[in-house]
Amino acid sequence: MTESNWLDEVKWDEKGLVVAIAQDAVTGRVLMVAYMNRESLQLTAATGIAHYWTRSRQKLWKKGEESGHLQLVKELRLDCDGDVITMQIEQTGGIACHTGRESCFYRVWRDGQWQVTDAVIKDPQAIYHGHSH
Amino acid sequence: MTESNWLDEVKWDEKGLVVAIAQDAVTGRVLMVAYMNRESLQLTAATGIAHYWTRSRQKLWKKGEESGHLQLVKELRLDCDGDVITMQIEQTGGIACHTGRESCFYRVWRDGQWQVTDAVIKDPQAIYHGHSH
Repeated sequence: MTESNWLDEVKWDEKGLVVAIAQDAVTGRVLMVAYMNRESLQLTAATGIAHYWTRSRQKLWKKGEESGHLQLVKELRLDCDGDVITMQIEQTGGIACHTGRESCFYRVWRDGQWQVTDAVIKDPQAIYHGHSH
Repeated sequence: MTESNWLDEVKWDEKGLVVAIAQDAVTGRVLMVAYMNRESLQLTAATGIAHYWTRSRQKLWKKGEESGHLQLVKELRLDCDGDVITMQIEQTGGIACHTGRESCFYRVWRDGQWQVTDAVIKDPQAIYHGHSH
């Protein structure tokens, strides 16, 4: 069994990507969703730290490389179709969203509107030292 | 405020779709991931029952229309980028996966392999009466 076998079982899309969902390992809350290519999934499994592929910047993205908010991966799962990954993670700093919130899913549908329910924990300016992404 | 406003805040991809994640409302477990188009999201919000767009069959898909395993939606959230939806659901029959398992994520990465951890609850043949999808 070579290391590449399990990577071949993943059904990469036409851009070579899969959807990757990061959940809080304790609460199960979905913190963020991004994409992985083969290299980032391989690195995630090898290091236990979440790596993605950023479509906007078109490069490998070690989550937290700027903010320090690394994601420690406790478990990786693949779905029946092989095109979605779930990760149970420990979110360093308790902030996964670039807006400074715990989760990217801070808007709930209520009365025909997306209503913001979650407070900003830390000002993004303070997180990224003036950088944004 | 017209009903379409909140739908316009969703960032539909080039195929007019968003990723939709169904989580068990009690445990937080991710049960399945599929896609929604504008019509399916609107129907989901209006009826409280999850509707998707099936890419393989290219049509509106009311989850459970064949199996009876409807998904009752307790909460809908949108992420910061507007291109992913999470749903907290009650899964009728306790089976979300077409393989007859609770969740589509029944394989865990261990020792360099995807290992099946979850048992089949009900034979898919019995669920779909000979149909498959």
